[in-house]
Amino acid sequence: MFKKYYLLSPGPTPLPEEVLSIAAQPIIHHRTPEFSALFLEVVEGLKYVFGTKEDVHLFTSSGTGAMEAALVNILSPGDKILVINAGKFGERWGHIGRAYGLQVQEVVLDWGRDFTKEQLQAELRANPEVKAIFCSLSETSTGAAYDVQGYAQVVAQTAAILVVDGISGLGAMPCPMDEWRVDVLVSASQKSFLIPPGLSYIALSPKAWKMVETSKLPKFYFDLKKSKKNLADRTTPWTPAISLVVQQKKALERIKSMGLENLIEHHRILAEATRAGIKALGLELLAKRPGNVLTAVKVPAGLDGKALVKTMQGKYLAYIAGGQDPYKGKIFRIAHLGYMGGFDIITALSALEMTLSDLDYSFEKGSGLRAAQAILKENWK
Amino acid sequence: MFKKYYLLSPGPTPLPEEVLSIAAQPIIHHRTPEFSALFLEVVEGLKYVFGTKEDVHLFTSSGTGAMEAALVNILSPGDKILVINAGKFGERWGHIGRAYGLQVQEVVLDWGRDFTKEQLQAELRANPEVKAIFCSLSETSTGAAYDVQGYAQVVAQTAAILVVDGISGLGAMPCPMDEWRVDVLVSASQKSFLIPPGLSYIALSPKAWKMVETSKLPKFYFDLKKSKKNLADRTTPWTPAISLVVQQKKALERIKSMGLENLIEHHRILAEATRAGIKALGLELLAKRPGNVLTAVKVPAGLDGKALVKTMQGKYLAYIAGGQDPYKGKIFRIAHLGYMGGFDIITALSALEMTLSDLDYSFEKGSGLRAAQAILKENWK
Repeated sequence: MFKKYYLLSPGPTPLPEEVLSIAAQPIIHHRTPEFSALFLEVVEGLKYVFGTKEDVHLFTSSGTGAMEAALVNILSPGDKILVINAGKFGERWGHIGRAYGLQVQEVVLDWGRDFTKEQLQAELRANPEVKAIFCSLSETSTGAAYDVQGYAQVVAQTAAILVVDGISGLGAMPCPMDEWRVDVLVSASQKSFLIPPGLSYIALSPKAWKMVETSKLPKFYFDLKKSKKNLADRTTPWTPAISLVVQQKKALERIKSMGLENLIEHHRILAEATRAGIKALGLELLAKRPGNVLTAVKVPAGLDGKALVKTMQGKYLAYIAGGQDPYKGKIFRIAHLGYMGGFDIITALSALEMTLSDLDYSFEKGSGLRAAQAILKENWK
Repeated sequence: MFKKYYLLSPGPTPLPEEVLSIAAQPIIHHRTPEFSALFLEVVEGLKYVFGTKEDVHLFTSSGTGAMEAALVNILSPGDKILVINAGKFGERWGHIGRAYGLQVQEVVLDWGRDFTKEQLQAELRANPEVKAIFCSLSETSTGAAYDVQGYAQVVAQTAAILVVDGISGLGAMPCPMDEWRVDVLVSASQKSFLIPPGLSYIALSPKAWKMVETSKLPKFYFDLKKSKKNLADRTTPWTPAISLVVQQKKALERIKSMGLENLIEHHRILAEATRAGIKALGLELLAKRPGNVLTAVKVPAGLDGKALVKTMQGKYLAYIAGGQDPYKGKIFRIAHLGYMGGFDIITALSALEMTLSDLDYSFEKGSGLRAAQAILKENWK
């Protein structure tokens, strides 16, 4: 049989053909009116997805670069921050904070557990000196979604700011920055933005920009004041990844013509169908409050989780993600993110059913497919 | 007439067709054996171009990101550094150093002026507490080349290390890192590496790695210890710009089959032909010691430098670069970097002759073309 490769990972994600092919065009120079016009169109499109009137700044980096930018541009040495660590990416906020000599107060949750806005309120009352709260919209290591809207309500009552990692979540789940009063929102290109990895995005509320004025942590490449000054001149401080910016323009056209609400609804349907399939197979989700980005599934007792991922990837070329760190071998993650269609969920579940059969797991063959198909059919539009 | 666009800038540069088209292939996942194999092949190819047995580390960033990485990974707060500032990019070393609270001792040269190894030796004798010296192989704002081999001889006699910005120079001019005893060498993808902007590269000597062990400047995204640990696991700490890495593999195949010596010789010939054309037109170079990367030309008295660049770009679509900062309107820069052929130099000079005619500059028509062509013909192989 032909070896066809299926990307089912939470970044990189599958891309529309017209976004792929535009990368093969000759590179234009970035200090030209042509590129400036294209760049500003991208910034406008990003503002639309971020749900903000503020400018969205662009870095050539992975999402982690924009996370670092969020932190180094608003804080000063010795500042205290509160990190909601609910998985590998929440944990990263703490790592960055400590690397820059901040006092990191960390709420460490078991992976997949929820954290309510009331719990956040209690934490902030106990730690009134906290300058910024760092959380995730979608924790990519667990598939859990967090109540960013609720957190923002709590934080808006204080002098602190709320910084949200929307790297995998933005575009797949609602997070209208201005409406919800999120102060700093970070994302990256290889998720629902429909382009390859290499660009990261960040926007700040006026309240957060005020902190930028007094921030004393060192920065250069990720300096947002420089980016702001250059954006006013219709450019970026450093040579950007031009081909990716060109791809982002093309992909944003598609997102705008579909509409952000429909993009989010699309991801909701795929997520619901995937969960229905997983549950029909007798498998259990890791996240108490699963989001639209990916479905993390507990490896059932008696099954070898590493063999499961290896079979999915090696035999069926279905590139789901395994578990990270403490959950290596204990969970697997099926992403429903980016340019996927409904039938990609059927493909994912079929590969999973075949793999489970290979591993002698006992289940009703086709039950996962049937359950997912029912949800897709019901929601098809 | 068809509007054909000619990229004559010192980054981005023209790319081979097979490097452009490979960017249109579907994105593969970066945590797979397939990507690891490809990534390690890229690292090997980069080591070849760097002329080093040490690993070359890759960041998703512009070249400035790798410059920042060079500085934050080897130094500690309050350390004294010596910067050879011979233009906009030399100046940047000082900006980064000050952003991170270092004591920056700066040698400020008039743009285009040379700096000898004897002068460096005198500076180091006067400032024995200097921990690192920062210079450029090719100063992109002026086209000047610097005696990195000589600097390295001087610095090797001290406890300090030599950090070289090879962003535009590496691949176009000799800089065999191990042979010359350069301690830190930085480069970027959109120059002679034949791919779009978005990746930056850095390698360190064992002497520099020792300083990494004691460095106390804060870093996270650009942390080389993390990169080293991940490279041992055949991967990168953060999601890389996958499509650019795939392009770099393709471009390195071309570089390896041509041979690094031939790549450098190619750039030398184009540079010599360009300079011959410029001189035949009665124009003057900015750099005392011009390199192979670009030719910076003084705008002759009575001519409007901004109009010259605007006509070249707007009427003839020949995207040369203007002057930067104090030299805006006073120089223009013709790059001969990346995937250019001999006839691209003829094109550049023809566009320049037509532009000079438009601006009523008095010269013998065709004299620039004839002079360049003679050099190209003589060296053709």
